[in-house]
Amino acid sequence: MPDRILRAIAQPTIDHRGPAFALLGREVLDGLQRVFQTRGPVVIYPSSGTGAWEAAFVNTLSAGDKVLMFETGHFAVLWRDMAARFGLHVDFVPGDWRHGVDPALVEQKLTEDRGGAIKAVAVVHNETSTGVTTRIAGVRRAMDAARHPALLLVDAVSSLGSIEYRHDEWGADVTVSSSQKGMMLPPGLGFNAISEKALAASSSARLPRSYWDWAPMIKNNAAGFFTTTPATNLLYGLREAVRMLMDEGLVNVFARHRRFGEATRRAVAGWELEILCATPEEYSPALTAVVMPAGHDADAFRAIVLERFDMSLGAGLGKLKGKVFRIGHLGDFNDLMLAGTLGGVEMGLAAAEVPFARGGVTAALDYLASEARRPALT
Amino acid sequence: MPDRILRAIAQPTIDHRGPAFALLGREVLDGLQRVFQTRGPVVIYPSSGTGAWEAAFVNTLSAGDKVLMFETGHFAVLWRDMAARFGLHVDFVPGDWRHGVDPALVEQKLTEDRGGAIKAVAVVHNETSTGVTTRIAGVRRAMDAARHPALLLVDAVSSLGSIEYRHDEWGADVTVSSSQKGMMLPPGLGFNAISEKALAASSSARLPRSYWDWAPMIKNNAAGFFTTTPATNLLYGLREAVRMLMDEGLVNVFARHRRFGEATRRAVAGWELEILCATPEEYSPALTAVVMPAGHDADAFRAIVLERFDMSLGAGLGKLKGKVFRIGHLGDFNDLMLAGTLGGVEMGLAAAEVPFARGGVTAALDYLASEARRPALT
Amino acid sequence: MPDRILRAIAQPTIDHRGPAFALLGREVLDGLQRVFQTRGPVVIYPSSGTGAWEAAFVNTLSAGDKVLMFETGHFAVLWRDMAARFGLHVDFVPGDWRHGVDPALVEQKLTEDRGGAIKAVAVVHNETSTGVTTRIAGVRRAMDAARHPALLLVDAVSSLGSIEYRHDEWGADVTVSSSQKGMMLPPGLGFNAISEKALAASSSARLPRSYWDWAPMIKNNAAGFFTTTPATNLLYGLREAVRMLMDEGLVNVFARHRRFGEATRRAVAGWELEILCATPEEYSPALTAVVMPAGHDADAFRAIVLERFDMSLGAGLGKLKGKVFRIGHLGDFNDLMLAGTLGGVEMGLAAAEVPFARGGVTAALDYLASEARRPALT
Amino acid sequence: MPDRILRAIAQPTIDHRGPAFALLGREVLDGLQRVFQTRGPVVIYPSSGTGAWEAAFVNTLSAGDKVLMFETGHFAVLWRDMAARFGLHVDFVPGDWRHGVDPALVEQKLTEDRGGAIKAVAVVHNETSTGVTTRIAGVRRAMDAARHPALLLVDAVSSLGSIEYRHDEWGADVTVSSSQKGMMLPPGLGFNAISEKALAASSSARLPRSYWDWAPMIKNNAAGFFTTTPATNLLYGLREAVRMLMDEGLVNVFARHRRFGEATRRAVAGWELEILCATPEEYSPALTAVVMPAGHDADAFRAIVLERFDMSLGAGLGKLKGKVFRIGHLGDFNDLMLAGTLGGVEMGLAAAEVPFARGGVTAALDYLASEARRPALT
Repeated sequence: MPDRILRAIAQPTIDHRGPAFALLGREVLDGLQRVFQTRGPVVIYPSSGTGAWEAAFVNTLSAGDKVLMFETGHFAVLWRDMAARFGLHVDFVPGDWRHGVDPALVEQKLTEDRGGAIKAVAVVHNETSTGVTTRIAGVRRAMDAARHPALLLVDAVSSLGSIEYRHDEWGADVTVSSSQKGMMLPPGLGFNAISEKALAASSSARLPRSYWDWAPMIKNNAAGFFTTTPATNLLYGLREAVRMLMDEGLVNVFARHRRFGEATRRAVAGWELEILCATPEEYSPALTAVVMPAGHDADAFRAIVLERFDMSLGAGLGKLKGKVFRIGHLGDFNDLMLAGTLGGVEMGLAAAEVPFARGGVTAALDYLASEARRPALT
Repeated sequence: MPDRILRAIAQPTIDHRGPAFALLGREVLDGLQRVFQTRGPVVIYPSSGTGAWEAAFVNTLSAGDKVLMFETGHFAVLWRDMAARFGLHVDFVPGDWRHGVDPALVEQKLTEDRGGAIKAVAVVHNETSTGVTTRIAGVRRAMDAARHPALLLVDAVSSLGSIEYRHDEWGADVTVSSSQKGMMLPPGLGFNAISEKALAASSSARLPRSYWDWAPMIKNNAAGFFTTTPATNLLYGLREAVRMLMDEGLVNVFARHRRFGEATRRAVAGWELEILCATPEEYSPALTAVVMPAGHDADAFRAIVLERFDMSLGAGLGKLKGKVFRIGHLGDFNDLMLAGTLGGVEMGLAAAEVPFARGGVTAALDYLASEARRPALT
Repeated sequence: MPDRILRAIAQPTIDHRGPAFALLGREVLDGLQRVFQTRGPVVIYPSSGTGAWEAAFVNTLSAGDKVLMFETGHFAVLWRDMAARFGLHVDFVPGDWRHGVDPALVEQKLTEDRGGAIKAVAVVHNETSTGVTTRIAGVRRAMDAARHPALLLVDAVSSLGSIEYRHDEWGADVTVSSSQKGMMLPPGLGFNAISEKALAASSSARLPRSYWDWAPMIKNNAAGFFTTTPATNLLYGLREAVRMLMDEGLVNVFARHRRFGEATRRAVAGWELEILCATPEEYSPALTAVVMPAGHDADAFRAIVLERFDMSLGAGLGKLKGKVFRIGHLGDFNDLMLAGTLGGVEMGLAAAEVPFARGGVTAALDYLASEARRPALT
Repeated sequence: MPDRILRAIAQPTIDHRGPAFALLGREVLDGLQRVFQTRGPVVIYPSSGTGAWEAAFVNTLSAGDKVLMFETGHFAVLWRDMAARFGLHVDFVPGDWRHGVDPALVEQKLTEDRGGAIKAVAVVHNETSTGVTTRIAGVRRAMDAARHPALLLVDAVSSLGSIEYRHDEWGADVTVSSSQKGMMLPPGLGFNAISEKALAASSSARLPRSYWDWAPMIKNNAAGFFTTTPATNLLYGLREAVRMLMDEGLVNVFARHRRFGEATRRAVAGWELEILCATPEEYSPALTAVVMPAGHDADAFRAIVLERFDMSLGAGLGKLKGKVFRIGHLGDFNDLMLAGTLGGVEMGLAAAEVPFARGGVTAALDYLASEARRPALT
């Protein structure tokens, strides 16, 4: 969490109906459009990312609607569960948690849906539980190839601001995200980026909605205001976060995380451990999940790393519990923090007596040092 | 907004699945029970107070249920509107925005409801738009007298932490509140305090729910954790706010706000202006709405006060727009801040050439000085 | 203390030998020149204002030098004591602590000093202990009239940034100030503004000096660096303070404090109490000392105000102990804070049963409201 | 700089003459005694460490006094220069900047000084410019062996709070330190720990003094107050720093830095580079200076590390300019930060094309991992 952002959120709360607030409101809304790479509306809720998932459903769908989803990992499963609670019928394509969504399968499923029963395809861009990404542009091409009218709903919770994401160009209809990952903020803000098609769908969607309703939000947002009391102090942080991303340049931010992903994978290879993600084109620039050697418990290892080196590694979630640990490299992160993080993993492996080859950190440093010579993109 | 709280929320965000978080989670949940004066569960959402209203409905009611509500002011109207959006049938008793809910009318309405169609009575404890309170204990007695099984839902958004509130003793079933008023926090947290009866009702309630669902929250809260990512930094602030309230003692906090209310009303009387609230037993200790003399626009007056004295007075909301201004005296407020606030109003009245009698501030100071001699309650 | 400044000083300390520091260093040095209204060097020490007094002496004088000083109040006495400790011979003109330095007396003293024994005249611009100012331009005119080469050393500790001060135009040779009064910062920085004549004097001055030595400081300052480790975080605050003063405009800042002084004096007159300062042309815009009615102890009164209203009034210092209390109105202060402060005094007078007339606050509010109608100077 | 400390210094400044300040004053003074490991007085100045050097001289010595000093590095040279400016006669024993003070030489010098001309021996405990420590207990034993009455003045600026230091047990007379190194604070506070013998010497010392004078400070400190306006916000930070040191336990703090020193030296050995410090018993646990291979400029290397990895390595100071770079590992530093720092050096060596052996970081990690298994001392 950058100091700049923590100081920003510590500013006194201003009147959310006054003129100073309007400037703040417009700055963060305009800024999020740039981050989502969209010209359409972006809605901000005081909520977690889960709330923003719910907003995507209740604004676009009706009870009984069919939704195509894919078991790419823990968060895909949770989102599916939410869909079921709203009475949506989910066609949930099973997966092994090591691959993203296969565009060819999307095309096949939609082509088979001749009656147009499927109202939405909902996919997770970057699966936080696995370190596997789904190629959103590929999914959209598959939908277009099938000439199917379903909406494309995307969870970009852990990719926005760290991994390249183009809401408009990639044809997403609702992109869901939140404050606490690549946006470098504390949790408490949920986002929806909304296409014209999604907006049109919201007029006929019949799930009951009030707090999440886009219409009054978009109306009030025009002047920089919000429908219900906004989380003003987190918006201060959001303003700062957008400025930081723009100062660095999104293209440089994304390149930086790709570099961290590659360095991390070189370290894992150096340790002779296995990366969970099975397909190189789907490697996540935001985090890397590492498979624990057989006979060793990932959570026991994580506990040792936390106790001895005061570092929280990500746990294996859902059916990966105890089987993987996750190294995050998203957000406000630099080469030295990555070196420290990888150093902590290497020391932890030794301290926990997990079998591994020494020198993973050296491999990562070699790569980072060689990349450091390249000029920054502008 | 107290400095202590602003510094508290600027602490680095910790892992919401780790042991340090569990301590934080339990401390704020236990603390909120003390503030709500309940032994039952309290649920915390990343949301505005509006979200917590929604949570109260979707956890306890089903589409088509009848709800008894009262037009006590702007927020009562908004809450009614929300009920309608969820397909609830609201019996909305009209009001003049100068009185709270009449317990006798509650008893009459419930007694007439022989078939038990009314599933809930939903009232606002302290109407932020009017400075009028409803006597919740009286409403409960009326419900008991009518021997009616309806749930009692209470909006305590602007009373919790400033005006005495006793969830258990007064027999509220769901009390809705949020962070940004008496709790002295930035906006972004919504609360539900929940009775056993409300919890039982949630098993049969049929409105679709996921984000707001109490059950998984209560289950996870037992160990100090949350179902979805919590707004950790605001929870740091909540921990600090609860400590501040407990350090001062709730009984002293409430007495302080009663004193501020009385001093403000003496100032208003000194200016020979009219208080909106028509019934002394319903005067709000948290804010006072003042009726603008005929021929003068309250918003023009407020604009002058903002421009010349950098003070935001509350606007007249809904049908009171332009007709009243509101003086807030809730939260982290002391005698000198009140003297400054009332001084700003008196100067603003002069600057805006509103007819008024001089000396309102003097009357308030006389009262505060006389009260200052009394020892603090312990 | 403004929030902006507190947040500014909470930024992580940067390397005081690096390029980012140089920018900070030059910005605060340039900014202080604007605040002192000088084109000459300003030196910043990690020190209290007392340290900056010492710096003025050790850089310009030699043991045995004669210095002309005036007993205008407590701080004048302390500065005299310091001079004595350095072996300077002080001609200390007695005073009643109700008047500033009389320029006619300065002229007379210097005219009598035919041999040029007096090396410096050292005066306090705004006596914090009395609320009496000395007219520095008048002192300089007197020195010029006497055609005397003595240096003019001025203590502007409690005036800089609140009361008009013109180092160059008024012909001061060394102006001493510090961070914690009109500059709105926490204590910890001392300043010297230095004329060419003072700089020339420093080459022949013989008091031993190292930490306070101007020469290496001025040399390093050229590039934005400091001789010894600077108090970087306080410099962050200084940068913010200068920006705040420049945003408001010094002319507006000074007018604001003059207005506060007048309002406070009207309150004191309204209470039928006596102002310590005997000469209207010497009234301080930064603070007002009020004489306690006979038979009442000012410190007992102050203790009651502190306990009941949590407000620290200034104590009577030195020989005024128990006889006056001081109302500060300098720094980041607005009309409402003054209204609150004066309200606290009025309530305190009642609570302490000090005889006074009611209505002082009303008189102040009347004045402030009438002044608020005037447009800001630009 | 720990977040806890930055947040602590952002608290509003309190009245330095009020009761709340007295508690703060006593807590920091008592805390510093524990950190210096002394029962005698500790004096705190708003100043840099250089100011605290000056305080040690002006309180104990008179012009013309002889002082024995040793050329152990850049700061020893600067302190010698200061002594000369106060008219002290310094016997400055030359050195090669790779060794600490040789106790045998101290004994010899003092034994030769039969007339007792030497009034003080002044040594630097941890030379920040070289990473070489002087064994203070050994120096004291040498002085005792010579039965010489000179005072022992010690600069502990960069050791206090990171390297074991025992003012009383080691027989230091004045220990000089400051806020910004091991104490983890921003710069702006200087400290003197004072023995009874030093206090006695101050009665007869004749250098002029006022700001630095111990006597009024010690008198006011008894009740928690200060003679001149204290740097209150930095004292908030000092209170927090002392609490952090005591929470961890000084013995653990010192062990942690010894471990960091050893790990760093293993990295340097792994890179096949040379450590500046020539004697293992004098290795600094606070920082390590590394000799740049011939033909390579340390400052060019440092510039690359700053530009590419945003890390400030310490420069070679004085006659070491361009010849060494310094790796700091003092203060609030953990294993992962050290891993990141060493990773940055290793990457920088590669990026700057300095000849080195790969694997230095791996050697450090191996050592740290093996040490992590040992239980903390209590």
